[in-house]
Amino acid sequence: MNTKHLIVVFCAIVIAGAVYAESRPEEIIKSRQAAYAFLGWNSAKIRAALDPAGTFNKEEVIKSANAIQAIANSGLGALYVKGTDQGTGFHETKLKSEAFDPAYASKLAEVAGNFNKEANTLAVVAATGNKEAIKDQYSKLSATCKGCHDNFRAKNN
Amino acid sequence: MNTKHLIVVFCAIVIAGAVYAESRPEEIIKSRQAAYAFLGWNSAKIRAALDPAGTFNKEEVIKSANAIQAIANSGLGALYVKGTDQGTGFHETKLKSEAFDPAYASKLAEVAGNFNKEANTLAVVAATGNKEAIKDQYSKLSATCKGCHDNFRAKNN
Repeated sequence: MNTKHLIVVFCAIVIAGAVYAESRPEEIIKSRQAAYAFLGWNSAKIRAALDPAGTFNKEEVIKSANAIQAIANSGLGALYVKGTDQGTGFHETKLKSEAFDPAYASKLAEVAGNFNKEANTLAVVAATGNKEAIKDQYSKLSATCKGCHDNFRAKNN
Repeated sequence: MNTKHLIVVFCAIVIAGAVYAESRPEEIIKSRQAAYAFLGWNSAKIRAALDPAGTFNKEEVIKSANAIQAIANSGLGALYVKGTDQGTGFHETKLKSEAFDPAYASKLAEVAGNFNKEANTLAVVAATGNKEAIKDQYSKLSATCKGCHDNFRAKNN
């Protein structure tokens, strides 16, 4: 993505966040944690299907990939409301304050954009049922998760 | 749905559940609670968009409807593993033991099937952007949520 694109994505996140600013922080944190926990469940199912010891079922992989795509496109930016880097939803948030630091704005937009891009591509690749291609694309998606975790998620708290 | 269809849906739920039977109950309950909490967030966004005092944004409604559709089609039956009517995920489960009682099998298959059907239809209706049609279909979907809650979810615990 170029700089202009990054700024547009970042602003979309900020604006979307503002819409939910009136919600209680703990509710916002809960919804955020739910989204990523549900993402984790779907991701684990794909990982299990790709495991050499697992059973690859095309239809099941497509379901999970479609769920991940829908999560990525559901407007998660709305759940990054300033101040929600502290507080407890289902558990204490691991979101780092860097998520609201203008110095990290382009990084945030970059990792968010990458996640969306690779999630959308995974859904397309999953539909082909090509296991090796799905494996490659799943690796690319996983890298975007790591890209966000490394920058914006506390290791332990 | 006819009886045969109900039995097929119920068996699919049981078989899918068996696949995850080796997972720890608390992890299964967490994933289940995450799925429904994420569903709740997306549902709340549609409700807010349809509120006379709210702002109807077609693209946002489509995102939420697509997320709900993907949740409904993600294979949630796998999260109804026998024994997970007791235990704590993010919080104590509200699932009633009736979910695993053969006497309620056809009811469970019915409410699960209705939820899927109305969620899939909502995604189709949302894509049209017709606010009144979306309102009608959202009401139908909400009724299926109630149908499950009334039968299989404890009021308070």
